[in-house]
Amino acid sequence: MPSEFDLIRRLGLFQSLQRDEVVLGIGDDAAILDVPAGWQLAVSTDTFNRGVHFPEETAACDIGYKSMAASLSDVAAMGAEPLAVNLSLSMPVHDEEWLAGFARGFFESANQFQVQLMGGDTTHGPLSISVTVFATVPIEQALRRSGAQAGDLIYVTGTLGDAGAALLVLQEALKLPEPQRSMLVGRLNRPAPRVETGMLIRDYASACIDISDGLAADLSHILERSGIAATLYVDQIPLSAELKGCFDAVGGWTVPLNSGDDYELCFTVPSSKQGELENLLTGKQPAIHCIGMTETGDSLRLIMPDGTIKVIEPTGYDHFREARKVVARAPEQGARNRSNRSV
Amino acid sequence: MPSEFDLIRRLGLFQSLQRDEVVLGIGDDAAILDVPAGWQLAVSTDTFNRGVHFPEETAACDIGYKSMAASLSDVAAMGAEPLAVNLSLSMPVHDEEWLAGFARGFFESANQFQVQLMGGDTTHGPLSISVTVFATVPIEQALRRSGAQAGDLIYVTGTLGDAGAALLVLQEALKLPEPQRSMLVGRLNRPAPRVETGMLIRDYASACIDISDGLAADLSHILERSGIAATLYVDQIPLSAELKGCFDAVGGWTVPLNSGDDYELCFTVPSSKQGELENLLTGKQPAIHCIGMTETGDSLRLIMPDGTIKVIEPTGYDHFREARKVVARAPEQGARNRSNRSV
Repeated sequence: MPSEFDLIRRLGLFQSLQRDEVVLGIGDDAAILDVPAGWQLAVSTDTFNRGVHFPEETAACDIGYKSMAASLSDVAAMGAEPLAVNLSLSMPVHDEEWLAGFARGFFESANQFQVQLMGGDTTHGPLSISVTVFATVPIEQALRRSGAQAGDLIYVTGTLGDAGAALLVLQEALKLPEPQRSMLVGRLNRPAPRVETGMLIRDYASACIDISDGLAADLSHILERSGIAATLYVDQIPLSAELKGCFDAVGGWTVPLNSGDDYELCFTVPSSKQGELENLLTGKQPAIHCIGMTETGDSLRLIMPDGTIKVIEPTGYDHFREARKVVARAPEQGARNRSNRSV
Repeated sequence: MPSEFDLIRRLGLFQSLQRDEVVLGIGDDAAILDVPAGWQLAVSTDTFNRGVHFPEETAACDIGYKSMAASLSDVAAMGAEPLAVNLSLSMPVHDEEWLAGFARGFFESANQFQVQLMGGDTTHGPLSISVTVFATVPIEQALRRSGAQAGDLIYVTGTLGDAGAALLVLQEALKLPEPQRSMLVGRLNRPAPRVETGMLIRDYASACIDISDGLAADLSHILERSGIAATLYVDQIPLSAELKGCFDAVGGWTVPLNSGDDYELCFTVPSSKQGELENLLTGKQPAIHCIGMTETGDSLRLIMPDGTIKVIEPTGYDHFREARKVVARAPEQGARNRSNRSV
């Protein structure tokens, strides 16, 4: 059994949570998981490297929290219920204090969503965290990127751009007073995966994705996979009061359109289901906002607040490329955080 | 969709294999997997870091092959049938040639075992590969480390120590003629996970583990988890002709006892099932050999070929420690390859 998992246990930081579905957890060659009859397994792997997915100076507990939460976001986008994770943790040195902080953050998020750490690997190497999430979804009811049809409404959860603004704050490109600063940085370091919303919209949404690369890029994935186009009313994108308070300083609409790491959901809904969906989610957190509509074609048209129209060509996101073909260049600092794509 | 997976596709190197159980593969937020009724899922994650799990100069195709094959070994030790994998690949630079080599090796092993790449993550970072394997096993029939009882016979598959000797060869501590050199290096770089044997012994074995850390360490895991002791007749450990040909030069019995990376299986069998098991496996590859017997107690006794007895205390394997409490010190060069533990 890996000494790091043992150490976390000895420190009293290991979660006590045991899911019935996890028949055999940490301590053997493999874990054993039960998938109930009538359900399928949704599986997603996300990797987080120091200096690439989080700034060098990020606190261990935030790294732990975010690696768990961001990984859950992928199965939230499938409308699936997360059950368990495998954690692969590479550490350059045996650092008990760092490990304790990491475990605190990791299990805080895992426990919040009743997710059991059921296996993994701990090893020596440059700091890298890879999380594989196991979730269940009723047969054939998973939300895919490919299900949107022309005429569907486009929704997003929560507010966009907060994490992108926080990166500028952390890199000291922008000084902000409290509590504005803490709220934005919290959105970057402690994202809230929209697990409950994903499960609630399963019967209504035609397609869904989580916003990890930025709204424009991630909505484009839905459009590409569904073979459609869309018009997006940029002034309808929901913004937090904190972002509004520094909106021009961080680059205006570039941030909510193109910066990643918000981990909100973007989903499409047939107009026939709009009323029922909005009734269902009224008063629930996070709020949802309709920001556009899909149509035939293959491009993403942005109706900017000043009435101008910008068109984004369909193109995959390539994280070894510096620039992306989107209308507004993302803040350079944002690029480091948008450099992975889970599948 | 990750550009590396796209690139592998464009290079014509992506596998065409599609398992029926993989309902949705690469290209969405998560993959969707069907687990047939009456079966459970065995899941294992293994991570391989450059300079830690493989020497810096290892060829890309060997890294690809070994990361797949070694990962399959964990589910082989559960008696499970592998179906699919998620691959997390961190690369420091966009190196098409390296990626092509890696893909060739990775899919060569995956295709050999009919395992579909169903998802993962590709990202920028120090070279690191993390593989999560999904396998199925009939409900409650997975082979655990914990099932051995006093009086069971201890078996191993194949031959032990070849990979450990190969490390010395690669580090030029030992010069060997061909084809002896190639055979040993092939055993290190292209291990053969014992998937078929694992499935065959499922009805006979009481406990099983794959030998990734070394026979003494891995057998100790079975003993600890099962709460028993064992006597091992060291001269019964099967050796290849190639290892015999350089046995003293590489350190004698230290190598088959303590060097890792052989990825053979070590399993226990109630004596009542010995005849049936041996009949079943007669003439099959790999051969199996009985090397000892379990008993009450908590230590591992080694009967050395000269008649002396050495006792190994029960202790977990700690990969941030340099030394292990085993009777014979492993070759120092071997330590870098035994530095991870999957669970």
